Amino acid sequence: MNLQAQPGSGQSQYRILREADLRDYLAGLPAIVAHLGGAPADWSISEVGDGNLNLVFIVKGTSGGIAVKQALPYVRLVGESWPLPLSRAHYEHLALVHQARLAPKLVPAVLHHDGPLALTAMELLEPHIIMRKGLIGATRYPRFVEDISTFLARTLFFSSDLSLTAAEKKEGIADFAGNHALCKITEDLIFTDPYRVAEQNRWTAPHLDATAAAFRDDLDLHVAISRLKLKFMGSPEALIHGDLHTGSIMVAASETMVIDPEFAFYGPMGFDIGAVIGNLIMAYLASAGHERSPGERASFEAWLLETVEGVWTEFARKFVALWRSEAKGDGYPVSLFAGEAGATRLEAERQAYMARLFQDTVGFAAAKTIRRILGLAHNIDFEWIADEKQRAICEARALKLARSMMLETPSFTTIGAVTKAAREVRNWQPEFAN
Amino acid sequence: MNLQAQPGSGQSQYRILREADLRDYLAGLPAIVAHLGGAPADWSISEVGDGNLNLVFIVKGTSGGIAVKQALPYVRLVGESWPLPLSRAHYEHLALVHQARLAPKLVPAVLHHDGPLALTAMELLEPHIIMRKGLIGATRYPRFVEDISTFLARTLFFSSDLSLTAAEKKEGIADFAGNHALCKITEDLIFTDPYRVAEQNRWTAPHLDATAAAFRDDLDLHVAISRLKLKFMGSPEALIHGDLHTGSIMVAASETMVIDPEFAFYGPMGFDIGAVIGNLIMAYLASAGHERSPGERASFEAWLLETVEGVWTEFARKFVALWRSEAKGDGYPVSLFAGEAGATRLEAERQAYMARLFQDTVGFAAAKTIRRILGLAHNIDFEWIADEKQRAICEARALKLARSMMLETPSFTTIGAVTKAAREVRNWQPEFAN
Repeated sequence: MNLQAQPGSGQSQYRILREADLRDYLAGLPAIVAHLGGAPADWSISEVGDGNLNLVFIVKGTSGGIAVKQALPYVRLVGESWPLPLSRAHYEHLALVHQARLAPKLVPAVLHHDGPLALTAMELLEPHIIMRKGLIGATRYPRFVEDISTFLARTLFFSSDLSLTAAEKKEGIADFAGNHALCKITEDLIFTDPYRVAEQNRWTAPHLDATAAAFRDDLDLHVAISRLKLKFMGSPEALIHGDLHTGSIMVAASETMVIDPEFAFYGPMGFDIGAVIGNLIMAYLASAGHERSPGERASFEAWLLETVEGVWTEFARKFVALWRSEAKGDGYPVSLFAGEAGATRLEAERQAYMARLFQDTVGFAAAKTIRRILGLAHNIDFEWIADEKQRAICEARALKLARSMMLETPSFTTIGAVTKAAREVRNWQPEFAN
Repeated sequence: MNLQAQPGSGQSQYRILREADLRDYLAGLPAIVAHLGGAPADWSISEVGDGNLNLVFIVKGTSGGIAVKQALPYVRLVGESWPLPLSRAHYEHLALVHQARLAPKLVPAVLHHDGPLALTAMELLEPHIIMRKGLIGATRYPRFVEDISTFLARTLFFSSDLSLTAAEKKEGIADFAGNHALCKITEDLIFTDPYRVAEQNRWTAPHLDATAAAFRDDLDLHVAISRLKLKFMGSPEALIHGDLHTGSIMVAASETMVIDPEFAFYGPMGFDIGAVIGNLIMAYLASAGHERSPGERASFEAWLLETVEGVWTEFARKFVALWRSEAKGDGYPVSLFAGEAGATRLEAERQAYMARLFQDTVGFAAAKTIRRILGLAHNIDFEWIADEKQRAICEARALKLARSMMLETPSFTTIGAVTKAAREVRNWQPEFAN
């Protein structure tokens, strides 16, 4: 492990940068100065971080702009009472380098990284917006399926046992093992707290009080989420992004950019794929809450479900294609599947492998949904529905679908089964709606 | 990671010790001098390594004895053409310390460890013999079930997600990630080579020629072994011994000692349990080859099958008992299973967890059997059967059982189903026997 990654080391050089500090610091970096253009005194600098964890500055000069992200030694959303290691900036940088190599143009280019300051400067993404906001505004992104499926297939395949030797894989796992504080956030907030009494939980009350109580009492659900948690902790299948919701994706009409991989570690692939699919389904079920007139967003909603189907279908197609053409890893050695009969049998096994991965995806998509409605961190898809009862109706539908996906995972054998269930639950009315 | 563990580092100080070097070296260690007693010049030193990888010296003084194990920078069995990192001595030492803490008196006490020399001095086990030899001689070990089940339950449970926090677990995984060269031996020799043409493979020819060819052509088997290989590489469930056959166990009438954990890493628990069970089944099916008169070893063979049953049953009982009383890990958080209903549901889930672990155990036991008959490293259970045809009959029975255990794993739902199948195949005659 890189010692710089260890919490504590290098902290003597760490300081939280204010605007003036940042200007001086950047002025000392020739490549950044050249990229921005103009005199440092004339750069515009604004702090825009609306995430939960870090400082984010936008810096603009006469010829270009950059985004500068600095980790704080605590969770920004909560404050200094919830410390969080600066080392996450190191892991985020490592992951960005990995992703840029495998999915170029789908992640922002890194211009500068400073380990001790826990700081990374990246190209400024303009005119991109956070995808979640675009979806609330019913904007379609025609490139999204193509781009995100490429990102997923390539970043996951090339860090898996199908591409790496076992030795390379173990080294990769060790490189990210120190990022456990970020994993712990996921373990607690996604896989534990929504299913028990926890101070930080919240939900749309009183409408969802009974549902939240039912989730806290549902032991079948507790077994299912515990199995998913064990899988999250103990299945280093690939280097995953670890937080791939629609708030970690920036979009423009012609471009998709994945950002913020600070939760990266070697984990189950289905967690990333499930994050994308779960968040698209939430956008779909929140959509009714953003209607100004009935049916106004119907064709957008249909596009969303096509997108859900496309994400899985295209991911699976590209992943299997890579497996056919780029299998250099220690898993499924080609020498055991020689000849035509071997090739046919291996192809059948690829499909079986994808079927197991799809099951994981369905389970994790459900877990990601439930945590956004009953846990600490909510999303604006639902939060921006001003009418609380209407919001609760949308959320209740999402919870009903997620519960079914988690408890009856094997019944969802295709992505079509998922979108069908989503379409059905879209018209369901919870009791409190009457 | 401990830098001393890295292949290459410290090698400047490494030298292969001859008898005279060792005497001088040990004479400089006061604790060893005190333990041995007498003048260093009077110590008896003999090199006794009959394993595949290392030098092993027995040193005796007037008041005590020690065993000294030194790793060679290559595979002893093959020679300098097959290099193997000295760092394995570091991992073996780490694993010994872990095991001694959790299963005291079931592993030899470490008296001295020297990282740069890749050397460990341990208490001398006398009058113990290698268990495999004892079983060939039809000796019963009344303490074995009790001891090995304690060793397995405690070393596995306390390094699992049921006992450790996710952060502790990730640190442990990283600590052993560098031992990949030893894992690679297993990946190749157990999970790949026996199923393809490989120069190092051998088997009892010509009797098993057709069977070996059938195993190389059986694509269902190739899928099954590839799934097991993927599980071996990608399931860091616990710190496993990694080579727990009956040649890694030393026994006396009243004592069981597990030795040689140089293959240790975080892997699937079923690999260790399956190693024990697979090797006991091989001892059972080899037994007919060691008979001087028909039925002579019948009651010993019955004891062997009782032992197989006892190993799983007692392991499972102890593991579940630890889970009930010592669950401090991040897996299956107790807060999700509160109250009487929660306790009942969690207990059912424990049984489901053990059922999944048993499936892994059956699969790995089969893999360990096949590699000993069709791969590079054979075992003396079979090799010491002088009559080649008789040996081949015993081996063919073991292969038939192992193939069934690997391909029809779900049909073996209890350990009784395994011993029943073993008993049935004991009386099966392969075609070439007639």
